[in-house]
Amino acid sequence: MSKLNSETHSKLKIIPLGGLEQIGMNITAFEYADSIIVVDCGIAFPEDDMLGIDLCIPDVSYLVEHIDKVKGFFITHGHEDHIGALPYVLKDVNVPVYATKLTVGLIERKLQEHNLLTTTKRNVVKHGQTVSLGDFRVEFIQTNHSITDASALAIYCPAGVVVHTGDFKVDYTPIFGDPIDLQRIGEIGKKGVLALMCDSTNAEREGFTKSERTIGVVFDTLFAEHTSNRLVVATFASNVDRVQQIINSAYKYGRKVVLEGRSMTNVIEIAQELGYIQIPENTLIDVDELRNYPDEKTVIITTGSQGESMAALSRMATSVHKKIAIKPNDTIILSASPIPGNEKAVSKIINELEAKGAEVILDVHVSGHACSEEIKLIYSLVRPKYAIPVHGEFRHRHAQEKIARALGYDSKHILMIRSGDILELDEKGAAVTGRAHVGSVFVDGLGVGDVGNVVIRDRQHLAEDGIVIIVLVLEKGTGQLLAGPDIVSRGFVYVREADALLEDSTDILQESLDSLADAGITDWGKIKNTLRDNLSSYLWKETRRRPMIIPIIMEV
Amino acid sequence: MSKLNSETHSKLKIIPLGGLEQIGMNITAFEYADSIIVVDCGIAFPEDDMLGIDLCIPDVSYLVEHIDKVKGFFITHGHEDHIGALPYVLKDVNVPVYATKLTVGLIERKLQEHNLLTTTKRNVVKHGQTVSLGDFRVEFIQTNHSITDASALAIYCPAGVVVHTGDFKVDYTPIFGDPIDLQRIGEIGKKGVLALMCDSTNAEREGFTKSERTIGVVFDTLFAEHTSNRLVVATFASNVDRVQQIINSAYKYGRKVVLEGRSMTNVIEIAQELGYIQIPENTLIDVDELRNYPDEKTVIITTGSQGESMAALSRMATSVHKKIAIKPNDTIILSASPIPGNEKAVSKIINELEAKGAEVILDVHVSGHACSEEIKLIYSLVRPKYAIPVHGEFRHRHAQEKIARALGYDSKHILMIRSGDILELDEKGAAVTGRAHVGSVFVDGLGVGDVGNVVIRDRQHLAEDGIVIIVLVLEKGTGQLLAGPDIVSRGFVYVREADALLEDSTDILQESLDSLADAGITDWGKIKNTLRDNLSSYLWKETRRRPMIIPIIMEV
Repeated sequence: MSKLNSETHSKLKIIPLGGLEQIGMNITAFEYADSIIVVDCGIAFPEDDMLGIDLCIPDVSYLVEHIDKVKGFFITHGHEDHIGALPYVLKDVNVPVYATKLTVGLIERKLQEHNLLTTTKRNVVKHGQTVSLGDFRVEFIQTNHSITDASALAIYCPAGVVVHTGDFKVDYTPIFGDPIDLQRIGEIGKKGVLALMCDSTNAEREGFTKSERTIGVVFDTLFAEHTSNRLVVATFASNVDRVQQIINSAYKYGRKVVLEGRSMTNVIEIAQELGYIQIPENTLIDVDELRNYPDEKTVIITTGSQGESMAALSRMATSVHKKIAIKPNDTIILSASPIPGNEKAVSKIINELEAKGAEVILDVHVSGHACSEEIKLIYSLVRPKYAIPVHGEFRHRHAQEKIARALGYDSKHILMIRSGDILELDEKGAAVTGRAHVGSVFVDGLGVGDVGNVVIRDRQHLAEDGIVIIVLVLEKGTGQLLAGPDIVSRGFVYVREADALLEDSTDILQESLDSLADAGITDWGKIKNTLRDNLSSYLWKETRRRPMIIPIIMEV
Repeated sequence: MSKLNSETHSKLKIIPLGGLEQIGMNITAFEYADSIIVVDCGIAFPEDDMLGIDLCIPDVSYLVEHIDKVKGFFITHGHEDHIGALPYVLKDVNVPVYATKLTVGLIERKLQEHNLLTTTKRNVVKHGQTVSLGDFRVEFIQTNHSITDASALAIYCPAGVVVHTGDFKVDYTPIFGDPIDLQRIGEIGKKGVLALMCDSTNAEREGFTKSERTIGVVFDTLFAEHTSNRLVVATFASNVDRVQQIINSAYKYGRKVVLEGRSMTNVIEIAQELGYIQIPENTLIDVDELRNYPDEKTVIITTGSQGESMAALSRMATSVHKKIAIKPNDTIILSASPIPGNEKAVSKIINELEAKGAEVILDVHVSGHACSEEIKLIYSLVRPKYAIPVHGEFRHRHAQEKIARALGYDSKHILMIRSGDILELDEKGAAVTGRAHVGSVFVDGLGVGDVGNVVIRDRQHLAEDGIVIIVLVLEKGTGQLLAGPDIVSRGFVYVREADALLEDSTDILQESLDSLADAGITDWGKIKNTLRDNLSSYLWKETRRRPMIIPIIMEV
């Protein structure tokens, strides 16, 4: 039963501005009459072919166009794919941000880096609290995830209630805070829910994701088994509960703890300030103090579990870390699984660590996302009229679609929308009624959006076969050749061993110029095209490569 | 007990010229007195950072330097990482090639493409046969793998016997040919083996790899369950037994079979000619005949199981295949697992296929490599004096090292050598006594070795931030500026929206030139460096990017 009343005329619009065709870049607008609220504002990491790009943020033209309606951001948890784009988007869409305490703490660190602290309103919300903005009320509900303080949102408006799970798992025995508030979710469900937007990340996996607490038991066992080794544990900096458990084991087995990696020290500092982690006194030591303790009385908790080449673990593995060198007596615990795409990078680090004589223990990890049985549980508590699988690539959302079908939902009630779809819905029906402009905006260094598809295509071309530059100087008026053609190449061929190829190339250019002169052609465009085409054909014939060819004509 | 006799003075040298730090590029030289034989001659696929490279072949300088000793190549099986470099290496090291019938068939197809058929001696060897070359005798022993006609080699020389497994698994019920000849391996072991070089690929996995035949049962079930769907099965072209089983199921369930993808039709053509696959009459049809049959009476066997963007399955998934379009009623069976590094590419295809409404069934596959229990079995049959784990990255070989230790071998008898090590051994001892020059030679188009680290580093630089070219024209003698400085950029920034940045850049260059002129500096090297440094600093400050900057000075 929804809360529709007789005065309701509008439908709710749900407009995902990212996140439905990819992992990351989660951001969804909810629009009712003159109010828009936005759930999450994350980045995506660039695909392999997005050369030189640091990160991708969502195109929020839709929000900018409707800026008068936009009331605020509601953030489900503090991971990059949910908060990372905030500092960029807030510059154009400066509205208040609502989130739980740890999430706000992590957001504030970002705002600080972008000098946005003074201009951004932040509001800490507790689980169980509700925020009213325009036509919306948003209730924060306790969930569990691989970062503490994660929330589901119940979004109330006159057209009905939407439950958005955020990223979640069902953990009956979490490390910090309460288990997911299944009672409240059931209560909301009982009153009638229009739509459920549920995390799909692990929908392909059967069963239940294990409790974070099970990993603590594994750590205790590993610490007990390795009393004569130094331990190095790599995990996600944001997984504060994981770090808490490693520290618990360290304390229990009398080891000092070093935190390594910028994001690790950052996040744990925030978590400590806000009371999300308890570190016994005299447990943390500085990396420089390592030398004062025997190896077997220390543990290093580090970033780099995904094989990131600049992270601390990788620097240790490749012997470029300034303060920590891997030794044969080290035991390295990878307390993470490779995120798809990172398998080879992780494997490379394992090779390097093992080649140094260290023992490597893999996959001491549980996921932060719900598997199929947990998804069924949430569906059974919420019993929404419409199912809108979110978070994940198509295959993951498709797996949730199959789960919903197994629970009796038909294709009319499972809404497999795409980013940019404007979905309008109320108790009477649901339909995609339009499209919003969406897309990835590339961030490269300080540039936001100044690198687009043209630049990327050029980088791909340059990466594949390099560049050949042709320069010649013509006399103004007569068009007579005064100097050149000269050839400069980079990334094409090793020049010192390709004299013949480059000399022949110059000859071909000279012949082309002679022919053009004979034909009386002085148009620069024609000259450039002819030089480019003739050289390109010759190089393809000789090398089967197609370098980028840039003819430059100077006039004096 | 080895076959040493009192006249023996030499030791056996084992020199891996590739394959020990990577998957692929398998090639090992065995040298005794004046004889060298070479086992396998494979390619490696380029790493992600080897931009524009098509494939990597081993540097065989060692063989070229000792060309008078080199007697022949012995090839264990017909996969690219064991035969792919032959056409390149044979140009410098033209000695006879020995292999089983299917392997020779696949090699001949390669030689044909490189016009080497007439100049290369090929010799078909049957399992159980022995070839004598110089001081060596080489016995071919039946094994099982994901390609038919795979061989282990027993390499006899006066210093002792080496058993090289090649890539292998233990399949008691193979599809074509006999199970691995465990009897003969045991017999050779009983007589005394100096060293075992054993496949490490799956050494991290416990237990036994399942028989290829178990996949036939899965196909029968899938065909029985999908009587109203068109089936598309993607697998490795070289897995002839897999294709045989798909065809068996197709025949049983009354479906016509289309083979799609160049390597699929190539390999199956060779396999059919040589009698390695039995295709019932009227089963194969041409892709153009598909329209004459109802969808549910057809199956398409295709390449592209690794998500290769140019392969047939990818072309179907992205709707660029000229003759086959994916329909909602299709069931696609991925009869392969993603090779590490290909996970995202495979995932992309799954997304695209499922978004078209097709059902995708994953991992209908068994590996072709031995797991830990099979490796223990081979060790127990061979009981070598020395264990030399081969084939795989360090982590895989290290896993075999751990297996050998569990079987009682100590570190003196497990030889963890690297590519390029010259390992000398006989019954009295084993030691690395020198290094051979080894490395990857890059093949890019028609160029072999003309792209090296300098060119690759340039491509990486160009890929990351693009290029900025500065051109200016100076008067000969006076050094006076006649034209420019002009700026041309590619892959750096979207030029139409970066007017200000590029204008300011030109100003900076002009100011730099003025200062240089005022200081009376006319040295081109100094001018170029100053322009490059000043522009680089400015662009870094403005964009946090470091494009490649190329100053070009023309003189008239």
